[in-house]
Amino acid sequence: MRDLLSTANLSRKEFEDILRKAAALKADRRVTNELAGRSVALVFLNPSLRTRASMQVAVFELGGNPVLIEPGSTSWSIEYRDKIVMDGNKTEHIAEFVRVLSRYVSAIGVRTFAELKDWEYERTDPVLHAFAKYSNVPVINLESAMHHPCQAFADMLTIRERFGSEKKRVLMTWAWHPKALPMAVPNSFVLAAAQCGHELTIAHPAGYDLDSDLMRQATEHAEAAGGSIRVTNDPHQGFDDGDVVYAKSWAPASFYGRPDVGHHASLRHDWIVDSEKMSRTNDGIFMHCLPVRRNVIVTDEVLDSSNSVVIDEAENRLHVQKAILAALVK
Amino acid sequence: MRDLLSTANLSRKEFEDILRKAAALKADRRVTNELAGRSVALVFLNPSLRTRASMQVAVFELGGNPVLIEPGSTSWSIEYRDKIVMDGNKTEHIAEFVRVLSRYVSAIGVRTFAELKDWEYERTDPVLHAFAKYSNVPVINLESAMHHPCQAFADMLTIRERFGSEKKRVLMTWAWHPKALPMAVPNSFVLAAAQCGHELTIAHPAGYDLDSDLMRQATEHAEAAGGSIRVTNDPHQGFDDGDVVYAKSWAPASFYGRPDVGHHASLRHDWIVDSEKMSRTNDGIFMHCLPVRRNVIVTDEVLDSSNSVVIDEAENRLHVQKAILAALVK
Amino acid sequence: MRDLLSTANLSRKEFEDILRKAAALKADRRVTNELAGRSVALVFLNPSLRTRASMQVAVFELGGNPVLIEPGSTSWSIEYRDKIVMDGNKTEHIAEFVRVLSRYVSAIGVRTFAELKDWEYERTDPVLHAFAKYSNVPVINLESAMHHPCQAFADMLTIRERFGSEKKRVLMTWAWHPKALPMAVPNSFVLAAAQCGHELTIAHPAGYDLDSDLMRQATEHAEAAGGSIRVTNDPHQGFDDGDVVYAKSWAPASFYGRPDVGHHASLRHDWIVDSEKMSRTNDGIFMHCLPVRRNVIVTDEVLDSSNSVVIDEAENRLHVQKAILAALVK
Repeated sequence: MRDLLSTANLSRKEFEDILRKAAALKADRRVTNELAGRSVALVFLNPSLRTRASMQVAVFELGGNPVLIEPGSTSWSIEYRDKIVMDGNKTEHIAEFVRVLSRYVSAIGVRTFAELKDWEYERTDPVLHAFAKYSNVPVINLESAMHHPCQAFADMLTIRERFGSEKKRVLMTWAWHPKALPMAVPNSFVLAAAQCGHELTIAHPAGYDLDSDLMRQATEHAEAAGGSIRVTNDPHQGFDDGDVVYAKSWAPASFYGRPDVGHHASLRHDWIVDSEKMSRTNDGIFMHCLPVRRNVIVTDEVLDSSNSVVIDEAENRLHVQKAILAALVK
Repeated sequence: MRDLLSTANLSRKEFEDILRKAAALKADRRVTNELAGRSVALVFLNPSLRTRASMQVAVFELGGNPVLIEPGSTSWSIEYRDKIVMDGNKTEHIAEFVRVLSRYVSAIGVRTFAELKDWEYERTDPVLHAFAKYSNVPVINLESAMHHPCQAFADMLTIRERFGSEKKRVLMTWAWHPKALPMAVPNSFVLAAAQCGHELTIAHPAGYDLDSDLMRQATEHAEAAGGSIRVTNDPHQGFDDGDVVYAKSWAPASFYGRPDVGHHASLRHDWIVDSEKMSRTNDGIFMHCLPVRRNVIVTDEVLDSSNSVVIDEAENRLHVQKAILAALVK
Repeated sequence: MRDLLSTANLSRKEFEDILRKAAALKADRRVTNELAGRSVALVFLNPSLRTRASMQVAVFELGGNPVLIEPGSTSWSIEYRDKIVMDGNKTEHIAEFVRVLSRYVSAIGVRTFAELKDWEYERTDPVLHAFAKYSNVPVINLESAMHHPCQAFADMLTIRERFGSEKKRVLMTWAWHPKALPMAVPNSFVLAAAQCGHELTIAHPAGYDLDSDLMRQATEHAEAAGGSIRVTNDPHQGFDDGDVVYAKSWAPASFYGRPDVGHHASLRHDWIVDSEKMSRTNDGIFMHCLPVRRNVIVTDEVLDSSNSVVIDEAENRLHVQKAILAALVK
């Protein structure tokens, strides 16, 4: 493992080692020296609470120095296209940006959302891969257009804390949101749940399919790990006897390049997670990556219940990221 | 003492312990380990120089790691209202924001100015209290709508450095300013000066009264500490034989919700602190929390005189905040 | 040496000591304790990648604590004029800004670009000198209107790494750019190259002369160090047999105060650095301070060639800044 771009290419052992190390770091939280004397660049092209805070704390607790960079704000705007004549509004090419940072720091974390402009381009995660291409030091994906592996690790650790390493009935359910959002979180959750061998249901309205390549990869992982994936367009079905309910809104491929399109209002009522739905689960836990729109994605009643583990997920971001940093930085 | 929201509820001993510890830390300035291995979140909803810089240095000098968060800019915008359907422009609820941070850090400092929109709402310091409500770790008020206790401690330390712990004749005088400003600094100064038993005069134009509850609290403290408070609408009277002159502009309750209202131009000349006024004091010191508008609040001549202690006040922010952090974080 | 405002007033020994110390710190990169327990303020009035990142890493690797301040954004807007009535849109006077910071930190780095509004004013570097005037701690110029000494040191170290301390044939060549840019980099490079005794050619279009005082200073340094300076308006001539080619766009004095003026399109083709030009050098290296506009200032072919040392220059910013901090902070 050189970079952490997604969990897709991790071996079973690599995947498990991160979770095991994270649990150990959580159980004995103190400052260690894996990053002593090292700086880590944290490049934010988008806002963030959990990632900004938890990565800074993670680097510090490993003895290192977090260096925050906000291109287009505190730093220069970045050009990603090759062989371009840079006479427009972009100031610095990614080739220089990353190669320079690589000289200062021992790892680079990067956060970059999908712009929802061009599906065929963005589905390849071009910004993330440009960072990885030019970097001489490990690159950690802190959420890209298509993946959010740190979140997925935190989610898997949270499930394991509640249920041990048993395979569980897990629902990833779409929810209505006032804005069109990227697919990174559902993609990475689906992949990681498949890699853990869970019995996974993905529920979303018709036309909201996740990327077909991603689904193929997840299916292969599920088969290899003894799990399963089924997809439904029914907002209710997946709750029955579920152990885990993960809610997340996303925009389908068809929304890309259409800035004015939104989710149909008729979907709103059907897809919110409420107590009635949760009552049909097997005393299931409620998960969300946060930030969450209260009473839009999920009701206050569910979010504030003892079955809600959203704060644990957020805390676990810290511990898995410490494990990832410790594994990647030599 | 669990949080530091204002000085109002501190016992005499708690108040004195902060000042004594701050003086000791100033006398022997070096890195210690009260916060070794700990991170402290510094949440800024408004700009800041002294607070941003001095809190970062304070946390570092105690061995800890400052983590800066700017909601609405580097982080998500925050919803404070309970039971709200979050389908507007706010991305994250304070309940999640604070509970997540509480897992990463050992204390949370928060800076949030009054918006001057709704007096009855803002006078209760709702943002600050929402942080305190949801936090599992100590919350430190780095200036809220109604209080600025770190400034008040720094001010009291500065007075004590000049005069020892004797009770002095202290004037808090309003000044004209091109913008309407919150009351946090005069509120906290008045409270703390009362708690220290000073002989306090508050001078402001008619109609610029501080909050009646705040004045009642301050009066009780003054009585308990053997001091006194009088209020005058005369811009000159309070200078006579004064030991301490503290200038500060604020907007009265009547300005809240009226964004176009400003201070009457006729007040400008009468209320500026100049050498003539200072000459009537008992060789008094000039104080201001900074930033200060030169030749608007106070003349260059007074601000640059040897009786001006504004830089000492700013320096003392560092030392009192170190004392506060050391007292709160266990 | 108390501050580092430019290299102009450094003695030969001071100049050489910085380069020697930087090379030693680069050869043995690890955390040391020159800044143990010390904080350093890094004040950014403009965006930055290399400076922000490398200064944070530099302070950390010397054992210290970097404190970033962005006036007008995270901090208050600054008034620089003396004896001003501050009733406009500036919130804090530089006198207070700097004197307060001086109490918290052991050095202040400041980044402030030319605004290209008023040549006679800006050529005196008024912002930088205001910082130095009010500071009680060393001030380090992280690029001002007229100087960028940290870059010049990094450039000289880079030349020395390639060629030893021999005197070389060095070309500073102007290039076309879509925007009018300040002169700080060419000024400081020219000065430093003269101080190192190189055989320097400055090539720029007619009317693009550098400041006459700067040129006089540089000429005196060149003579003292056994070097030379010639100026040409020919975009080709300086490449012949050159060892070092440094490309940089700048706006001449005549552009100041004329926001709509730009470089004539006819200059674009003539002044780009391409392989044909580089082929006429003595296997010369290509240098640029970054960020660089690809295929505008220089072609991809040159920038990506093995003779391009732009990433080394950027890395060397770190090492020279560590040397400067270690030299200035006592």
